[in-house]
Amino acid sequence: MIVSDTPAAVAGVFTTNQVCAAPVKISRQHARKELARAIVVNSGNANACTGLQGLRDAETMARLAASLLDKLDRLNRSSFPTPMAAEDVLVCSTGRIGVAMPMKNVERGVRACAPQIARSTSNARQVAEAIMTTDTRRKEIAVEFKIGKSTIRIGGICKGAGMIQPGMATMLGFITTDAAVEPSALKRAIKIAVGQSFNRITVDGDMSTNDSVIALANGLAGNPKIVSRPARKLDGFKPSSLQMSLSPFARFQTALNFVCLELAKMIVRDGEGTSRFVALHLRGARNDREAEAAARAIANSSLVRASWCGGDPNWGRILCALGYSKADVDETIVDVGYARPGTRKILFAFRRGRPTNVALKTLVKITAAPDFSLHVDLHRGCGEFVLYAADLTENYVAFNKGDITDPATLGG
Amino acid sequence: MIVSDTPAAVAGVFTTNQVCAAPVKISRQHARKELARAIVVNSGNANACTGLQGLRDAETMARLAASLLDKLDRLNRSSFPTPMAAEDVLVCSTGRIGVAMPMKNVERGVRACAPQIARSTSNARQVAEAIMTTDTRRKEIAVEFKIGKSTIRIGGICKGAGMIQPGMATMLGFITTDAAVEPSALKRAIKIAVGQSFNRITVDGDMSTNDSVIALANGLAGNPKIVSRPARKLDGFKPSSLQMSLSPFARFQTALNFVCLELAKMIVRDGEGTSRFVALHLRGARNDREAEAAARAIANSSLVRASWCGGDPNWGRILCALGYSKADVDETIVDVGYARPGTRKILFAFRRGRPTNVALKTLVKITAAPDFSLHVDLHRGCGEFVLYAADLTENYVAFNKGDITDPATLGG
Repeated sequence: MIVSDTPAAVAGVFTTNQVCAAPVKISRQHARKELARAIVVNSGNANACTGLQGLRDAETMARLAASLLDKLDRLNRSSFPTPMAAEDVLVCSTGRIGVAMPMKNVERGVRACAPQIARSTSNARQVAEAIMTTDTRRKEIAVEFKIGKSTIRIGGICKGAGMIQPGMATMLGFITTDAAVEPSALKRAIKIAVGQSFNRITVDGDMSTNDSVIALANGLAGNPKIVSRPARKLDGFKPSSLQMSLSPFARFQTALNFVCLELAKMIVRDGEGTSRFVALHLRGARNDREAEAAARAIANSSLVRASWCGGDPNWGRILCALGYSKADVDETIVDVGYARPGTRKILFAFRRGRPTNVALKTLVKITAAPDFSLHVDLHRGCGEFVLYAADLTENYVAFNKGDITDPATLGG
Repeated sequence: MIVSDTPAAVAGVFTTNQVCAAPVKISRQHARKELARAIVVNSGNANACTGLQGLRDAETMARLAASLLDKLDRLNRSSFPTPMAAEDVLVCSTGRIGVAMPMKNVERGVRACAPQIARSTSNARQVAEAIMTTDTRRKEIAVEFKIGKSTIRIGGICKGAGMIQPGMATMLGFITTDAAVEPSALKRAIKIAVGQSFNRITVDGDMSTNDSVIALANGLAGNPKIVSRPARKLDGFKPSSLQMSLSPFARFQTALNFVCLELAKMIVRDGEGTSRFVALHLRGARNDREAEAAARAIANSSLVRASWCGGDPNWGRILCALGYSKADVDETIVDVGYARPGTRKILFAFRRGRPTNVALKTLVKITAAPDFSLHVDLHRGCGEFVLYAADLTENYVAFNKGDITDPATLGG
């Protein structure tokens, strides 16, 4: 459970999969209230494709958490005008699809959480661990920055290792901040932050039924409430005053973007069975939409991903994937190059439609590393997209294939 | 080389990949003449992304084959009005992308072929073997049927094991027949046959730069020339006369469909590293286009395919893939079931939006077999699509990942 001491502005971004899980339906509804107190999460069961009973179970989780936390409020003599209700709690689940929730376990879990929350405010690490499923490590980050005289903190945790792709990467992400933010501004900020982070990663091209990123902002930092105003006109704009003139919203957005992007990259690096992290920079498409289509065609190609697994700079397969993407591609002017992470020095394997004379073993020195960037320029326009991708390994298959001798690995 | 004794009607269906190989460009052009004498094919090098030199090399292959075959014509005292020209020969290549053609080897190969063709007409098997790349077995089929008093034969060979997916499965297919067919009728028939066969298979979701299916019909069977007429009105139609009233075109089409579908299935069964063949029947979509989108989302999902590898009837992942497909899906009415090949008895794992009480181990008995069918009904309309798919295995990845210690496996 993640609990705010005071009612917090809440905003969520949820899966765009038509088949979405019961907790997603419930949380989407509860987030409309714009204020929330807590999030209750379970791992091991996705509560997806579970029909009406699933919806009832997700509601029960919220109600149970609310009633236990309300008791804590009263012990702490908090004087909130109304008792905590189920609607003040968002619900997330992750795990197997199509299996009824083991509600006895859930209840036991929620009851065990409450006293721990009462005792300590420093168990975020435990939450990051509790939400793991096939993750091999916990994913957490926090930043601190100033807005005016107030020190603001943003913390983030997430989980996710498979079923990672568009719309929203399959994952759960929870962002908490003590900033005071208007709910509408928080909603806008989290949408922007997710767009440039969790929506730009892909592990296996699958999109889950349970993806959720939820942000809570409870205002305890005491800053003047951050609002989101339409962009001002740039009359009288002086470049040198840019840093100073950044609005509180822009500063908050910058920090939130950083938190979300770092978390998103952690998910790719911990992708099921993956051995390579590839930052794919696609430039020169006719527009951004085509740039995205081209980048996703490359990053979701089984053949390209298998070649990455072997450390092979197989640009032929990249051109092939570009060719069947929805982007307009003219192979006679395309560039394909590789770079070490963090450098701008691109070694081109293919330039303006022709193989270069860069030696294969020079390219391999880059692509054999666990981390490299791939630069593709279509030279057709100004469309750009960056996508963080992973390779396809034997371990991914071994991990996901189930084992018919072990029924626990099958059937949902 | 595949050679017809007489000028044959020719029709081709080629990759829809924007990045298409030089031989595809040349063959597309030569096929416009509607008559051809031969096809020259190499494996090992795709002659794709090879620029102007690639086009020149493909033309050289056609010219060389034409001049050698023309000499044979003259030895055989054939009296064709004009000598064989490069335009009478189609060219296909399959193999690595982005490497210049080793034209010395090509020339040696073409020169070695010609005398064999002169000596024997029964080396089709050698051709089926010569075009193999990563295929583990040759793929060939032939049928014989009557149109009127003429006995017609259709033979087909193909290759293909990876880069198999839409538009056209990555493969080369060659259909030869002694039927007399109008070029326009042959064009229509091969387009229909490819649509219901090679375009309905998927191994890894990748579409190649070199896909080609070429049909040659030389008329030596002596049947009245088959033409394609617009469908007649069914006034006075009697069901009992259906078989008898099938037009020569319809009979030819039926045989051609059979040949192409059998070849296409051979490709899936021989897919790189695959261990399972899944016939996916998607019904009840709002229209056929949505049925195809839903079927492809399932068959190209890495997670679904990995579960097939383990023999796991993991319908949760199937619902998840349906949810992110472009088809309209309401999870509360979907059916998902499995059947043994060739039977109509479907065992449902999920029916009308709920898990059934069919035991997991009963389902596993079906899905653990190397061959099963998957039946999905969306209950939204009359759209249907059948797709032949394969699983994703560790061997597929091992096969395609390249090996940086062996440069021959890398870089194109």
